Order: sequence, then C-alpha cells, then structure tokens
Amino acid sequence: MKTDQILYGGDYNPEQWPEDIWPEDMRLMKEAGVNILTLNVFSWAALQPAEEVYDFRRLDRVLALAKENGMQVCMATSTAAHPAWMAKKYPEILRTDFGGIRRKFGGRHNSCPNSAVYRTMAARLAGKLAEHYKEETCITAWHISNEYGGACYCENCEAAFRVWLREKYHTLDALNAAWDTAVWSHTFYDWDEIVLPDTRSEYIDENRTQFPVITLDYRRFMSDSMLACFCLEKEAIRAQIPDARVTTNFMGFYENLDYQKWAQAMDFVSWDNYPSNEASYAEIGMSHDLMRSLKQGQSFALMEQTPSVTNWLPYNALKRPGMMRLLSWQAVAHGSDTVMFFQMRRSTGGCEMLHGALIDHVGTDQTRVFREAARLGRELAAFGGCTLGARTPARAAILFSWENWWAIDACAGPSQDLSYLPEVQNYYTALREMNIDTDLISPGDDLSKYRLILAPYWFMVKEEWAEAARAFVSGGGILVITCFSGIVDENDLAVTGGYPGKLKNLAGIWVEESDALPEGTENSFLYQGNRYPARILCDLLHLSGAAQMDLGGFERDFYRGCPVITRNLYGSGACWYIATTSSRQFYHDFLQDLCGQAGIRPVLTASEGVEVTCRENEGGRYYFILNYTDRAQTVYCPWETEDLLKHTVCPAGIMEIKAKDVMILRQETGKQEPAAI
Amino acid sequence: MKTDQILYGGDYNPEQWPEDIWPEDMRLMKEAGVNILTLNVFSWAALQPAEEVYDFRRLDRVLALAKENGMQVCMATSTAAHPAWMAKKYPEILRTDFGGIRRKFGGRHNSCPNSAVYRTMAARLAGKLAEHYKEETCITAWHISNEYGGACYCENCEAAFRVWLREKYHTLDALNAAWDTAVWSHTFYDWDEIVLPDTRSEYIDENRTQFPVITLDYRRFMSDSMLACFCLEKEAIRAQIPDARVTTNFMGFYENLDYQKWAQAMDFVSWDNYPSNEASYAEIGMSHDLMRSLKQGQSFALMEQTPSVTNWLPYNALKRPGMMRLLSWQAVAHGSDTVMFFQMRRSTGGCEMLHGALIDHVGTDQTRVFREAARLGRELAAFGGCTLGARTPARAAILFSWENWWAIDACAGPSQDLSYLPEVQNYYTALREMNIDTDLISPGDDLSKYRLILAPYWFMVKEEWAEAARAFVSGGGILVITCFSGIVDENDLAVTGGYPGKLKNLAGIWVEESDALPEGTENSFLYQGNRYPARILCDLLHLSGAAQMDLGGFERDFYRGCPVITRNLYGSGACWYIATTSSRQFYHDFLQDLCGQAGIRPVLTASEGVEVTCRENEGGRYYFILNYTDRAQTVYCPWETEDLLKHTVCPAGIMEIKAKDVMILRQETGKQEPAAI
Amino acid sequence: MKTDQILYGGDYNPEQWPEDIWPEDMRLMKEAGVNILTLNVFSWAALQPAEEVYDFRRLDRVLALAKENGMQVCMATSTAAHPAWMAKKYPEILRTDFGGIRRKFGGRHNSCPNSAVYRTMAARLAGKLAEHYKEETCITAWHISNEYGGACYCENCEAAFRVWLREKYHTLDALNAAWDTAVWSHTFYDWDEIVLPDTRSEYIDENRTQFPVITLDYRRFMSDSMLACFCLEKEAIRAQIPDARVTTNFMGFYENLDYQKWAQAMDFVSWDNYPSNEASYAEIGMSHDLMRSLKQGQSFALMEQTPSVTNWLPYNALKRPGMMRLLSWQAVAHGSDTVMFFQMRRSTGGCEMLHGALIDHVGTDQTRVFREAARLGRELAAFGGCTLGARTPARAAILFSWENWWAIDACAGPSQDLSYLPEVQNYYTALREMNIDTDLISPGDDLSKYRLILAPYWFMVKEEWAEAARAFVSGGGILVITCFSGIVDENDLAVTGGYPGKLKNLAGIWVEESDALPEGTENSFLYQGNRYPARILCDLLHLSGAAQMDLGGFERDFYRGCPVITRNLYGSGACWYIATTSSRQFYHDFLQDLCGQAGIRPVLTASEGVEVTCRENEGGRYYFILNYTDRAQTVYCPWETEDLLKHTVCPAGIMEIKAKDVMILRQETGKQEPAAI
Repeated sequence: MKTDQILYGGDYNPEQWPEDIWPEDMRLMKEAGVNILTLNVFSWAALQPAEEVYDFRRLDRVLALAKENGMQVCMATSTAAHPAWMAKKYPEILRTDFGGIRRKFGGRHNSCPNSAVYRTMAARLAGKLAEHYKEETCITAWHISNEYGGACYCENCEAAFRVWLREKYHTLDALNAAWDTAVWSHTFYDWDEIVLPDTRSEYIDENRTQFPVITLDYRRFMSDSMLACFCLEKEAIRAQIPDARVTTNFMGFYENLDYQKWAQAMDFVSWDNYPSNEASYAEIGMSHDLMRSLKQGQSFALMEQTPSVTNWLPYNALKRPGMMRLLSWQAVAHGSDTVMFFQMRRSTGGCEMLHGALIDHVGTDQTRVFREAARLGRELAAFGGCTLGARTPARAAILFSWENWWAIDACAGPSQDLSYLPEVQNYYTALREMNIDTDLISPGDDLSKYRLILAPYWFMVKEEWAEAARAFVSGGGILVITCFSGIVDENDLAVTGGYPGKLKNLAGIWVEESDALPEGTENSFLYQGNRYPARILCDLLHLSGAAQMDLGGFERDFYRGCPVITRNLYGSGACWYIATTSSRQFYHDFLQDLCGQAGIRPVLTASEGVEVTCRENEGGRYYFILNYTDRAQTVYCPWETEDLLKHTVCPAGIMEIKAKDVMILRQETGKQEPAAI
Repeated sequence: MKTDQILYGGDYNPEQWPEDIWPEDMRLMKEAGVNILTLNVFSWAALQPAEEVYDFRRLDRVLALAKENGMQVCMATSTAAHPAWMAKKYPEILRTDFGGIRRKFGGRHNSCPNSAVYRTMAARLAGKLAEHYKEETCITAWHISNEYGGACYCENCEAAFRVWLREKYHTLDALNAAWDTAVWSHTFYDWDEIVLPDTRSEYIDENRTQFPVITLDYRRFMSDSMLACFCLEKEAIRAQIPDARVTTNFMGFYENLDYQKWAQAMDFVSWDNYPSNEASYAEIGMSHDLMRSLKQGQSFALMEQTPSVTNWLPYNALKRPGMMRLLSWQAVAHGSDTVMFFQMRRSTGGCEMLHGALIDHVGTDQTRVFREAARLGRELAAFGGCTLGARTPARAAILFSWENWWAIDACAGPSQDLSYLPEVQNYYTALREMNIDTDLISPGDDLSKYRLILAPYWFMVKEEWAEAARAFVSGGGILVITCFSGIVDENDLAVTGGYPGKLKNLAGIWVEESDALPEGTENSFLYQGNRYPARILCDLLHLSGAAQMDLGGFERDFYRGCPVITRNLYGSGACWYIATTSSRQFYHDFLQDLCGQAGIRPVLTASEGVEVTCRENEGGRYYFILNYTDRAQTVYCPWETEDLLKHTVCPAGIMEIKAKDVMILRQETGKQEPAAI
Repeated sequence: MKTDQILYGGDYNPEQWPEDIWPEDMRLMKEAGVNILTLNVFSWAALQPAEEVYDFRRLDRVLALAKENGMQVCMATSTAAHPAWMAKKYPEILRTDFGGIRRKFGGRHNSCPNSAVYRTMAARLAGKLAEHYKEETCITAWHISNEYGGACYCENCEAAFRVWLREKYHTLDALNAAWDTAVWSHTFYDWDEIVLPDTRSEYIDENRTQFPVITLDYRRFMSDSMLACFCLEKEAIRAQIPDARVTTNFMGFYENLDYQKWAQAMDFVSWDNYPSNEASYAEIGMSHDLMRSLKQGQSFALMEQTPSVTNWLPYNALKRPGMMRLLSWQAVAHGSDTVMFFQMRRSTGGCEMLHGALIDHVGTDQTRVFREAARLGRELAAFGGCTLGARTPARAAILFSWENWWAIDACAGPSQDLSYLPEVQNYYTALREMNIDTDLISPGDDLSKYRLILAPYWFMVKEEWAEAARAFVSGGGILVITCFSGIVDENDLAVTGGYPGKLKNLAGIWVEESDALPEGTENSFLYQGNRYPARILCDLLHLSGAAQMDLGGFERDFYRGCPVITRNLYGSGACWYIATTSSRQFYHDFLQDLCGQAGIRPVLTASEGVEVTCRENEGGRYYFILNYTDRAQTVYCPWETEDLLKHTVCPAGIMEIKAKDVMILRQETGKQEPAAI
C-alpha cells in the first residue's frame, strides 16, 4: 500500500450511527493516530436497496469525511452478506447446509458461491463501486467480501461440482479409477449420479465420511468456488482500476480454504488475528508466519484484531494492559506492514455488541483501551516506515499443505488423537522458542533457500513434492519427516510397496506397521542420553539404508527395540525420520541438535519468554524483541545497533527489556529493497 | 375456588381403564381424603372422534361418579394434544421445529399456536364442554390445555410474526432502527423479507444467535401466540359460564412463556412442582414465590406433584418417607390453597408408566405411598380452611423479568458461565435461609411496599423500570444491583454514555470494562473483615457519587483496588452495586447486613435446615415451620400461638420440631381477608 | 459346509485391483493356507451396470481362478450397496433417516428395505447369480447382502408399517387397546393416521420416545422388513439351487435385528467378530455363545475378523503377536467351524484403507501379520476336521431376548444407568470366568436341558415365557431373576397386581417400590458373610412365600432390612430373586454357590485368565484351553486325553499352558454326530 509508515486504523461502520456522531468519531480517531479506515464491509442492503437501484450517497459522505481528515481507505465491497430482498427474490443464493437444509435469510457469509445470481450481483456491485470511486486516491486497497468461509451443499453446487470434476478428470473412467469406486459399489456411469458428500450421502456424523476421496475433491472444489467469486469481483474492480491493490481478509489456519492457492490471486495477504485467551506467542506467531509465507515472504497486512475483548469466546477476558501493543508489534515483527482493529466504534446492536472497539459505548477518549491505542498510534507515527516491505531471512521451514490437512482429517483411523495442526505446532514451537525464524511453506514452494525443512504428518505426497524433497536433500538440505507420512497420493489412494511410499528411498526405511496407542498410554525411547515419551502412533520400521539415531529403539511392548529416530544420508544432505509423536522437550532438544548441524542459529539469544524475530531490507536488519513475561528479561546482541523506539545507539552486549515491552534494533547492512505490499 | 379446606386430589384419567375399575378408584380416593379431581386433560381424540362429532358420554359418566362421591372437579379442556385424525386432515396444525423440520403426529403439546384450524378447533371444543357442563356446580375451576410450552417455526408462524411486528413497530423504518439492521446488511425493505430466527437463519447452533434482538421479539411473539390460544378458549368458556374460574398449569421458571404477562389473563395461577432429587427447599421455595408473585400475592394452586417418583429424571429416586407431606405443606406455606397430584392411578401404557401415582399398578391401598397420602388427606381435612386466601407479608423482593432472561440468554458474551437463574437463586437462597419472606416480582410491579429490592444481572432496563427504581430508592428503599446490569434497552440496544446505563446516576458509578474470568479462576475482595471470592465477571468501575463499601477493592490483577461494593445515597434511600458474582457465604453475610439496615427481620428464628414462612389473613398470622433435616431442630417464637396441627396452645419461647416434621402456628391479629383464589 | 477341515480364508475383493495382480494374490493366499474365499460382497454396480444389463464376466474370471487354486467359495449376492444409477433412477430405494431427511446415494447399507424396486432388483440379482453359478460346486455357501442393519423412516416404510400392524392387530380397536392410546389422546380412527416413531413424531431426542410401545412394534417391523428382503433373495437362490446353504453375516449383539427370529430362516449362522481393544475374552465369548445359541447349538461360521488392526476404533491398536491365533481358536472353541478374515488384500481406497488385511499395501509375505496367518493356516490344516459340527454341552443358560432389549431401551425411567447388555454381561462373565459353558437362549427356547437359568432384567414377560419358566422350575431347575423384571407384557403394558407380574408367584415375592440410586451412590448387603454393594436399582420387596437368603437386607436408607436375595422353592426347583445390581465379586460368589447347588461344574479347573470350553461329537469331547495372559498357567484335567495340536497323549493331571497359547485336548466318548453347518 501507499504509505510512509505502518498503517494504523481499522474497520469503521458509521452506517450504524446517526451522522452527527461522525465528526466526533473523526476527532477521536485522529487523536488516536489512526490513518486508515476499512469502510463498507457490510452495507450491501444499503448500497443496493433494490435490484436496479444503487445508492452510494451515504458512502460518499463517509469517504469525503475520511479524506478531509487525511485518512487512507481500505474499501470493502460489501458482498459478504447479501440483502434480505435478494434472498426473498432469488432463493437460489441461499446456502444449503451439511444436513441438507436450505437456509433462509440471516447471519452473514450466507451466499451460495455457485449461485449465478450471487456471482453476478456481487461482481456488479464491486464494479459499480470501482467505477464510482476510481478517482479516489485515498483508496489504498480494495477488500473483497469478508472472511470467506463455510460451505454449501445445494443443488447448484452439486451441478457445479460435476462440472469441476469433469474438467479435472475428463472421463468417468478416470474418475472411477482415481476415486477407487470399485469399493462399496460406487462406480459411476453418468456424471449426474455423483452427489455431494454430506450427511445425506457419505457422512455418518459431522466428521466421519465413508468415502474420504470425495470429501477431498469437494473441499478443493468449494475452495475454488469461493476463489472464483473473489476473482470475479477482482476482475470487475480491475476493469475500472487496472492498478487496484486487491485483498480479502484471511483467518490464519482456516481449514475450508486453500489459502496457498488463493494467495496467488491476491495482491497482498491480509488477515484477522483473534487468538484465544490461552494462545501462546508461538501459536500466534505460527499464524503470522503462515500468512507471510503464502506469498513467498511478501509483507502482509494485519487487517483485524480486537483492541480489548472479543465477545464470542467462552470466557472473554480483557487484554491486559500492554498486551494490545505487544501483539500489534508482534504482527509487525512477523511481517505485517499494518496494525488494524475491528473496530473503531462499538456497535449498539447485533451479536458483536460486546466486542471491543477503539471507541467504547461510553463514547469518549477516557478509557484505558483508548489511551493505550492512542499511545501506540503515537509510537507508530514516530517509528515511521523503515520496516515496510522488509523480509524475514528464514533458513528453516515447515511444510504445510491444505490438501494434506484435508486428507488427514478425512482419513478413517488410525487414532482419534492424531491431528495435523497440533503436531505442526509442536515442531514450530520448538523452533520459535529458540528464536529461529521459520517459514510455513507449501511442499510446492521453492525449497532451495532453506537448510532445514520439517514435514510432520506428511500423509499425502504428490510425485512432484517427493521429487522436490529428494532434490532438496540431494543438494545438502536436512529434511525431517515423521510417522503417518507418505501413505497416500494426491487422489488419496494408498501407495503400495511399503510406507512411507514415495519417500521410502529418501528416508531409507520401511514402515511395516503402525500401532495406535490407546488413550492414556505411551511408550518411550532414549535419545542423546535422555528418555522421551512416544505418543499417539508408533511405527514399526525396518532400516533399509538409514541409520538408527536413538539408543535402542522403543523401550516397551512387542516392538521393543524398533528404531524411533533414523537418519538416511542422501546426496549431500540427510533425511531424518521420527517414528512417533513425542513431548515438547523432545522437539526442543532434537531440533536444537539439528539446527546446529544445519548451521542455523537463533536470531539473537534471549531469556525464556522473549521472542526475537528479524526482518531485513536495504535499510538494514531489524531485530524485534518482545518480552511476553511479567518481569524484565535480557537479550544478547553481538553487534552495535540502533534502538528505533528509543532512538539511541546500543553497543553490542547484553541488554535488558522490561516486562511486556518491545525493542526494535536496527543493524546496518546493504541489501536490495523488496517491494512493499 | 369454592372450598372450605385445602383442596386435595389431582389428575384422574379413567379413560385409560375399564369402567369397572372406576368405583374402586372412587373408594380408594375417598379413603385417601381426596376431594378434587382434575378430569379430561388428554381426551380430545375421544371427545371429538371426527370433525363434526362430539361425544361426551364417557366424560358424563366420570363426572357423575365424581359428583356422587362428593368430589369437586377441575375440568380440563383436553386441547394440549390434538387427535391424530386432525393432524392427518389438517397438517397445518403440526409444528415445525427449530431446525425447520415439520413434525408429524405424536407426543403432546404438538399444535402450532398460530394455526387457524387449531385455534378454531380448540376454542370450539372448550365452548362445547362449557356449554355441556355449565350447570355442573361441582366444577370448581377450568383448566385450559396443559403445560403450554415449546415453540413453532412454521410458515404460518412466520406470517403471524410479521403481523405481530407490524402491530408493534408500525413502520419498517422503526423496526430497522429498533433492530439496528444496519449491522450485517440486515435492512428490511418489505415485511415479507423477515424470517423466523432458527438454525435456518440466525442460529449457528442451538444456543447461539447471530442477531439477538430478533430472538427477543420472537420469544415475545411466541409467548403471546400461545397466550392468544389460551384467551380464545377462556372466552369460549366465559361465553357459556360468565363466572367460570379459569387457569392453566404453569411450570415454575419456564423460559418460553412470559408468565408475568400470562398471569394477567388468568383468574388464578396454578403450577406443577417437579423438583429434581437434588433441589434444596430454597430452590423449590423460589418457584413457589414466583408463582405467588405473578398475581401480586394472590394465593395459587399446586396443580401437580408426584406422590413418590417421577420417571423422566436421570435417576428417579423415591421420595423418602415424610417428604411428600413436607413438600405439600411447603406449597401451602408459600401461598398454595391446594395440594394436588399427578396422578390418581398409575398408567399401564405410555411413557409415564413408571411415574408415581396415588394408586399403584398393584391397585390397592396397601402401599407406603398410599398410606402417606391418606395420612396427609386426614391431616388436611382436620386442618380446615383457615389459611385459604392468606397472603405473605413480604418486605423484600427480587426483580425477575422474562424479557431480561431472554435478553441475557440471547446475548453473545461475556462469559459462558454467566447465567441469570443461578444468580437470582444465589440472592434468593441467602434470604430464604435467613427465613425472610421474599417476593419475585416484575420490575413493572408496584415496588412501594418493599423495603429491600435485589436486582441481580439486570441486563435489560426499560426507561419506566429505571424510573420506578429511582422512585423506590428516593422514597427510602434499598436497591441492590449487580454487574451485567443496565447494558441494553428494551430493544436490546446497548446504552451509550457508560454502564450501567439508565441506572448509572442512581448507582453513582461508571463501569468502564468488565473482565470475564476464565474457567477455574477467581479474584477476591474483603468486606466487613472477611475475604470473599469474585467470580465469573469483574467490573472495573469508577465512583461518581457512590462510596466504596468493601475494603480495598479487588485484590488481584491489573484492576487491583477497583471497588467491588458501592453504595450511593439517593433521596431517602440507597442504591448498592455489587461488581462481581460471589459465594453463598458472601450473599448471606451481605444480605444479613442489608436486611438489618432495612429493618427486615426473619419470620422467626430457627435452626439451619428449618424453613419458616408466614401467611396472614383476617384470622391472624400463620407461621409455617418445616424441618427438612433428619433430626429434631428448634425454633423460637416470641409470641403465644396456637398449634393448628396439634390443636394446642404454644407459649412464647423455644420450641422443638421433629425431623422432617411440620408445625403451623397461628398468631391472632385483626386484618382484612383477601379473596380466596 | 462341505469341508474336511476348519475353513480358513475370508473376503476377497479383486475388483479393486488390476487383474494382473490376481495370480500373485492366489499364490500368497495358498502360501497362507487359505481354502475359502468370500467373493462378490460389494459389486452390484459392476454386475449390473444398467437396469437390463448384467455382466458377470469379471466374476467368472475370479471364480475360475479360485477354482483353479482349489478354493471353496462363499458367494455373496452384492445387494448390500445399490448402484448409483439405481439411486438416481429410482429415488424410492433411498432411505429416510431418523430425522426425516431422505438420503442420497452414498455409503453402504443404503437401501430402503420396503422399497419394491429394491426388493425386486435385489432378488433378481440373487436369482441371476444363482442361475449363472448353479453348477459351480466350489460354491459352498451363499452369503446374502452384508451386515444387514440400520433403519428407514420413509413413506414407503410408513405404509408398510400400517400393513404390518393390520396383519398383527386386525382391528384398530385391538391396536388402540394394545398401545393404550387413550394416553395422551393417541386414539387412531384410521390406519393411515399412524406414523413412524422418529424425531418428527414421538422422539424428543435420539433416545427418548414419548410412546414406547410404538417403537417396540416399529423395531419388530423393521427387523421383519429386512428379514423379508433376506428371504426374497434366499428364495430366488433356492429356486435355482434347491440345496443351497444360505446365510448372512451377523454382528453379535446388534440391537436393530432380532437375530433369534432371523436365525430360523438361515441355514447356518455366521458373524463378524470385531471386538474393541479393551474387550475381555468373556465379552467376546458371550457374543460367540449368543451366535451358537441362535440355532440351538448348531455350529456357526466366523465370517469376518481382522488379522491385525481395524481402522474405525477411536484408537486402532495392533493385535499383539499371537492374539489373532488365540482369538481364531476362541471362535472354534465356542462353536465355529470356520476362521475367516476381512480381508485378503488391503484396499487402497475407500474409508477402510487403513483396515488390516492378510496382504498389506506392501504386497508381500514379508510381514508379521502374514507370517502369523500362514502359521495358523498350517496349524488348521494339520488339525483337520474332527471338531466340525461338534456341540457345546452347556447346562447353564442366560435368557436373552431382543424384544426385552427393545422394551428396556424404549422405557422412560427408572435410571439412566440401567442398561440390559452390561447386566447380562455381568452374569455371563461370572460363569465364563468359572469356565462354565453357557448358552444365551431365548425365553421361548427349550429350557428343559438346563439345570440353571439366569434371567437378568427380564422386564418384558410374555405369558408363554412365564409358563415355560414355571415348568422349568417345577421340573427341578434353578431360575434366577432380578430387579426390573416382570413389569410389562408383550405389548409393553404394565402388569397390574404387583411386580414382578407374571413371575410373582414363581418368585414368591411382591416388589412394592424400586429406588433408583442417584449417580455415585450405593447401598450394601451381606451374603454368606461378605458385604457387597447394591447399585442402580434397589427393590423394596415383601416375601410372599420366598425365604430371605441374604443376611439382614439392605444396610442403609429407609428400606434398611428389606430382603435383597430371596429363594422360593417351587415344585422340584427354586426361583431366586436378586433385588438389585451388584459387583463382579458378588456375581462370582453367588453363582459359584448356585452352580454347586445345580451340580454344574467347570469344564476343567484352570488358573485365572485361562478359558476352557468344551465341544463334543461322536469322536469325543474336545477341551479348548486358551491362555490369555502373558505368562504360563496351569490347568487340571482328570482324564487322559490326546493333545490335538501337539499330537501327544496327555496323562490325567496338571498341565502347563504357555503364555497366549492354545491347547486342544480330546477325550474319547461315544456320542452321535451332530450335522455340520
């Protein structure tokens, strides 16, 4: 975006208020240092009161006021919630739920993504907005719809699914083979025999399908369907404003949409960060790093966060003093060029009435929340724009794939405790707590810039992914794969010839069986002199080239002695295999060793509870040091740096950082500038 | 009702039995002292075997037999379960459930309250019954339908909802403003765009709506819809019998129906008391007191209770020896003029086959349950009618409002542990265990007769309610309000200008933020030298006139020191604010202080586990002393009284009451007699 | 079946694989000793690609290959999963679920059993298969459909239910009386007014009906409906092959189908044994014994078990080394003449991809699972056919009835902890752990051959059952009945005159009340000097002829002293009554006494954890000794026997059996041979 500082602001919904309050809103927002407003997120019913009537007059007035007050604008298209009149006139735009019930008007994110009426109406509105506002230079970005999500199981989607399948498989023979429909008499002789996978067809209950591969393709299809809606709106905007910068707000690890595919269609990634009360900084950081990695490290926008409370958690605790500032800087530390809130003024109606806002129901600047926000606004303004577009020089990466996620979740067995995200988090947390910057990349991304790649539960492996993995290791990389890997191909068909399938030679092992441990039980193993637990799944593997790296294998049960950790030297690199799931301590100790071997070192060395990340651009390297603890901590920096918040020079050495405080240090370098988002 | 003693009897369903058993039933019921039978509760299919055919012959025979045996009759209208033929012929009478599925015939309470066919048929049957039996002087009351409840989401209800809304709001502009439909693009341009709030529209799951205010109006509408059904039947009866006394049986704290509104349409309140095994006497007492307060203290009818077991609890334990008697007298102690059972003879079919009855499947008087009932029958006969119509001279009240309940339950946030009824119960229990008689009144009731009023979680405050509260305090009353109060108006719109909104000046405080405590955590505070826990919600408030009455505020967290208990002197009275939820001990200690300040004293002083209530009429004051414990206890009475069960004179002083026993003492006074129900 | 050894093999689904793999399959299966294949279980879509087209060519090739390799074949009819084209063309074949939603194509077991199209199509396919393969002597049995189950609530089923009811009751008066429809205005005046019992009619939630008797008849009807489907296919086969041996695979204690009625229509019983990880040998044994008892002790077929893992348990642990062999012999020990697996080769697609198989995804014989299976194959071949058709000489029996199960589950009250199967298991386990062979028979079976019969929770008692019980006891038998017995008749109507109803005179007691114990509470009693807990339900009973056999009755509560265990001498026998539910220890101690009195002795005396069963035929008595523990144990045999696995002679005396090992000893006798299955 066009800016010379970190953009600061957020969602502003003045349509909920009498207009005579707007000037006071402006006064308060400027007092808080706000310089960007997201407008028009949920106004479709007002913008288009009837099919052939568009009325942008109120939005014109809001925009004029924003301009007068020097605000940039992130202009939303309002298409995330269709008007009631449209639902009444065109019931086809309503979704059908997983149980087969057609919805009525209500809620939001309520439109069927394969409704021709919805697609036409949404693109038309986006086009009209773009046409109307194309000269408005204050519009710094376009925000299509809002938090795309959900799914639809209506007849239009069913018909569209068949078209999608025909485009993918061309012939029914190919589909029958890919889906292995000989199982349970599922052979299809006509495309129209194929039905959507829901509780009327393949699902026994909400989470258990009787035919996983159909779910896998349905998820791909539904993600693509919504992406098509996004692209139609984007094209309508581009037709009017060829250089418009277009985004939609993501939700971190949101399973329904393949953001890795979506990001390719977006000019920049933006996302909404709503951690639970209990989320650790490593959990939040992993989401940021995923968002950053979606566009190969390009900086992103923090589009929404709450300044104080949410209203939809089981227990909506207040963000403690200082936490809003800390989490805002954390976003920047991980790659954001914005700090934005939902929302500017607290609603008096609707179900988010108790959700926090810059301006509370009391309507003044005399609240803790406002004061903290205004203080941050001043700090951001003083900080300026030096980090804009800066990139994170990560040498470690974790492979993460939506398709793998979907395949794992659709799979029946082996253990209800086996879950993809927690295991990815286990590995990430170990690296994060060592202050090793890590990307979360697709297996299809360029692997060559990393020295260490971790691929937990890599259940689905495509041939080209396996090829890339082999090339990475051959070229000297260190790859870690784990149990529950290499089991299926991209059609969710099990590989023959022994697990981990396409990774078998690379790993130099054969996994004969996998034992799912009943609830509350565990095995154990020794590694580097320490004993660690083995949980959830234990592979019974045979070495076929790899060396056993643990001491003596599993310690109990009939597979006592079976190797737990193996290493296969392959080309110039090595492929490790971890035959089970273990404890936080194990991941820490193991990855510390591996990082040492890979020559990867912490950004800086800091006390526990202190996060350090790095971004870099032509202006130098920026070290973000964030102390999440309630007491002062230390960090060691071996170079002289400049403290960008205090505007002081810091000699090399140990520094103190106060409780819940942030330090940003710049080290001079001489690199090329990456483009800002 | 017309009676010279407490009415004793209950539901009698002879249609389930061969007629040759009826005389034996009469013999056994008379042996048990029964003098009233509720007849005809579920006989619609028999009374009207086809649309144009009515057949009351069997009911004639039952009634004749009842008369012969000197029984009074509570005549039900049988409209709580429509016949199967009607469902087949007129499917519109069937309800549609919350998920959008139209029901078929089955169960009971199965009719759509907005079905024109149902309304016509039900009123016609009630009218025919009244016409047929209008000369029967044994009919002492009319019992319309049975335990009204549930809800319907069919198209007829949707159309009726729109009519109801139009009557309420007149214009869509007014509705759009009241509902704040600018949120999430909900603006309605045509009444027909409005749909019912269920899982097809606004609900994410059974308990989470995305648009609370619609639910609030829907609940009002659905309660009104059933009330309209009641009124139609009542009018049909009145057209035949102008002085008929009409009721329907309530269910205590039943959320779906606004009994405060319903009670205005009823001649007297009656209700069905089915406590769980674990219910304390204070829990049961609170329901009785609510029922009594619905008609401003008029005595009510205990319409149903089980003589021994229920069949629908998770664990259907037997009522222990003596408990049936004790709970029967407790009803009288709290304002009932009847003691009635479901039912006289145990069914052999249906799902209540294992529900207790006066006459068990064995069919004799040789059971413990029968013997206890017969003993109570004799006791009631001997006791006579002196307490009929007597009133409870309560000086303390708790504000309770169905609309407030609905608004709280529809609200998203702040904590899933925040629940209206338990908090009302906390305050009530403290008063009850001090033996302070308490009314449970609507905020719209006359407040002037009370000295102390408690208003826990008074989330929704209407302007006239706030006005009444101010007048009450101005006039010298003590009002206690708590956290989560004054947040919305009657349209569920948040108040601006600071919480607790319309009560802010009265309370002399401003609540800036509210912290929801995560599960398992608590804060604490000191009051009168004792430490108490702070739970669920902690308000961060500022004094603006009030004085802090706790010592030092919250003891932990960043709002350490914030006041917990405040008192604002206002006119001649005081408004207290409790900024959190606390423990049983706190409510006890705090309310003991406040009662002292308000000059409210226990009815009598008694040992723990002994309940004492008072009723009074022209014949004097009646003290009901009920010992729920398993050992003898004591009670102190400072006046000479007459023991109405033992027929002895009791000198002033300490008296003993045996385990599980009841004493009823009369003190002579000279008051005016209230009307019997 | 035609065989001279225990049949060994299982499901083979070559249609899922390229044909060039089939020869390798054959090679591997023969290596493993397989001699029987179940073919064609889920191939309908392939066999009948369009309504008038049948194509058996691939099946011909499979069968030819099987024959060439000397395999016997169990030929399935493929009708358990209809083709997608059929669902599209004839939507009436699709089931409607319990919530009223019509299903679409998908899953399996998906056809409405009352669809005329389904019945016609299924029978036609079965007939075509039989016609096509009638000369194939390798086909040793016909396997109709697969694991019949589920239920349907569509309009066709509703119409068929009315026909079924009319056939049963003839008149609506009779139905109204049997169903006691006077309750809750349920009187029916036209058969078409009757609707199916589901969540649209009588059900409040998944498990709570408001009219139990309708559910009881619906369950009978639905079981009969599927049985009719079975019979239609059977007749179509018999029309071609008059002496075909026909079965379908049962699922042990599967509630939806009355296997006692089904078994009468089957030539032999077969079933699928999938115990949970935690199942004890007594739990598995009880299922085997039920299956054996369905056809009065005729030997049965173990149709399916997994060689290693399942994929659908919460935690799919591997079968430990030796366990597959042990469980295979256990089946034989309890009456099976086969040992069969699901399946021969592991699927690469579908939801059972991770289910174990003889040939794993790796595709070789180099796996633990294959090796264990091949070892068992050799053992079975060496063992030969001496036990084929042998019968279990049980002298103890437990009464088990599907109708009783259904009635208990539909009943509202008295305790949610009261459950039929666990209590049957309690009694069974006590006998099994004493190594007393036990049949699980219907109350309608011949009782005369037993000395001891246990009838836990015999809630529903038909007159003829009561008569048989009286005759059994009169004739010298010992009968044990328990609380929650004799309460309803076959129409689910409560008996009058006192519980346990029709068994009251036989038991010599009257149960006045039953107290359901709240969660976590228990009472206690003394028996033979030991104290035991009383749980779930405590009957308050009076002796009317019986003698109290416990010491002092219940030890607590107001019914302290009430008898817990009574014995009524009746004719030459005795009827015992146990007025509560107790602990494992009590059942053990009590039944040990009773077996002593009945002259029933353990098959052999063995250490704990060692199961011993007996089968016998003209060739002698066979003692199966199975050691489930992880260490060597002992067994005492008082006769000289022959060890049939080691081919040695064993002198009388104590023998050792190794951990997880099996011994089969033959004792010479001179009995008549029963027919093989």
